[in-house]
Amino acid sequence: MDQFSQDLQQMQQRINHFLSQQLTQVNSLHSPLADAMKYGLLLGGKRIRPFLVYATGNMLGANATQLDYAAAAIEAIHAYSLIHDDLPAMDNDDLRRGKPTCHVAFDEATAILAGDALQSFAFEILTQIPNLQAEQKLQLIQELAKNAGAKGMCLGQSLDLIAENKTIDLHELELIHRNKTGALITSALKMGFICSPHFQNKQLEQQLVQYAEAIGLAFQVQDDILDIEGDSETLGKTVGSDLISDKSTYPKLLGLQGAKDKAQQLYQEALSALDKIPFNVTALRDLATFIIHRKN
Amino acid sequence: MDQFSQDLQQMQQRINHFLSQQLTQVNSLHSPLADAMKYGLLLGGKRIRPFLVYATGNMLGANATQLDYAAAAIEAIHAYSLIHDDLPAMDNDDLRRGKPTCHVAFDEATAILAGDALQSFAFEILTQIPNLQAEQKLQLIQELAKNAGAKGMCLGQSLDLIAENKTIDLHELELIHRNKTGALITSALKMGFICSPHFQNKQLEQQLVQYAEAIGLAFQVQDDILDIEGDSETLGKTVGSDLISDKSTYPKLLGLQGAKDKAQQLYQEALSALDKIPFNVTALRDLATFIIHRKN
Repeated sequence: MDQFSQDLQQMQQRINHFLSQQLTQVNSLHSPLADAMKYGLLLGGKRIRPFLVYATGNMLGANATQLDYAAAAIEAIHAYSLIHDDLPAMDNDDLRRGKPTCHVAFDEATAILAGDALQSFAFEILTQIPNLQAEQKLQLIQELAKNAGAKGMCLGQSLDLIAENKTIDLHELELIHRNKTGALITSALKMGFICSPHFQNKQLEQQLVQYAEAIGLAFQVQDDILDIEGDSETLGKTVGSDLISDKSTYPKLLGLQGAKDKAQQLYQEALSALDKIPFNVTALRDLATFIIHRKN
Repeated sequence: MDQFSQDLQQMQQRINHFLSQQLTQVNSLHSPLADAMKYGLLLGGKRIRPFLVYATGNMLGANATQLDYAAAAIEAIHAYSLIHDDLPAMDNDDLRRGKPTCHVAFDEATAILAGDALQSFAFEILTQIPNLQAEQKLQLIQELAKNAGAKGMCLGQSLDLIAENKTIDLHELELIHRNKTGALITSALKMGFICSPHFQNKQLEQQLVQYAEAIGLAFQVQDDILDIEGDSETLGKTVGSDLISDKSTYPKLLGLQGAKDKAQQLYQEALSALDKIPFNVTALRDLATFIIHRKN
């Protein structure tokens, strides 16, 4: 296993352990709600967003314990969004990461409530970060709330639903993905940054955002490519579902080679942004490489 | 119209105006999501939670503009919970306040997302309160997040769903309502308190919580009574739905007179708590009276 894979795995163990610990807060009453929250939050996943929080924060000298809280909060938001996206009224998916989705393992009502409660949980966690300035905690909350809501992730999901069964152009497709996945990827970088002593350096923030926007979109382009070229077992979901649902994707709008070129171009943009950052960007560079080479 | 009704109406106009203003933040892109959020948030309603924020805050000398933000945030949480509660997988209600529920006026997916985005919106609003100490803003966020989530409102809703079609005892019924509606009523009082210069007075906080817990439960008992004695047109919803669904209610467990006695007892508890508060409690006393005499 290479160094990056080892680091990623170690980080996954760290965040999973921390999330489990935090969940004991809500576990006092025997309730399927707490079980469903735990199920959705600990179902697995690459933990890309926590990785970005830690990688950015570590690079900039943030406190590791404080980063745990920021990483847990953004992963709780991501987990809630997956639970709700999988619902019958939304994407109607039965499988997530090779396992039954939350509403299949429990029921629809419990899945809706578990998502709702995970969102509250995310913001509660951010208020509890030990020894961070109140002003920084507020910035973390503002950043996450703005990008999770109607100007970010929820907007992207709504635009995505509207785009179903109709042909959209590249501009519309990018708008969807910049909001649906991009907004939270950018938040992950910014949250690591806000936890650090450099949180008032606007120029640095701008360079991190440039990198984040490039890898956020690259992640989605690669997702679309994997839906054509991937392997169902490795992916943990059905390959070809975009083709079957006639969904607008990068390969559909640009051709498969065009989509691959796009991913490469975004990768180069991400690397260029990193070149301007006067810190050790190894982890962020490796993550960009991982995103466009990943098989699941 | 008596003084209290005038005050209530004036406050309703104030919070509705402020909520409309705040919603322009999310209205920049033409999206059914923003329309559904607006629909859910401005559909009407008594605005009891905002009233409690203002009444408590005004009594304790808080800044009126700062109270607008706290009141808007708690109403956004309440509005999201109603949108989600009305969904087919939850209570499956077509009417709310005499008008089509959000998922009927739009669609289920949009209703789920509008609720999700309203929750993010609530926390974002709290980060934006002008000139309030960062420490106080964090306390507001923590208070709301804790009581909205898996230790409060979402827990209550989950317990309520589990209790459907089975007989529960009075203890279980109270546990449901103390979480489902009580938690947010208590938060409303505490948020007005946290905005005030007295926010570190633990004794005062405790007295406000006692009052809040009594009126929170009284509100629910009266709700159950109105489902038997109310008038569908005044209520804006179908009377007798609890009987039809064989739901556990206070009249079912205590008899109609027993439920009325319970409401009176809670009312007296609320008044006793107010007696210990060395401020002008007129608005809070009038609100308690309103709650047990209301017809809708």
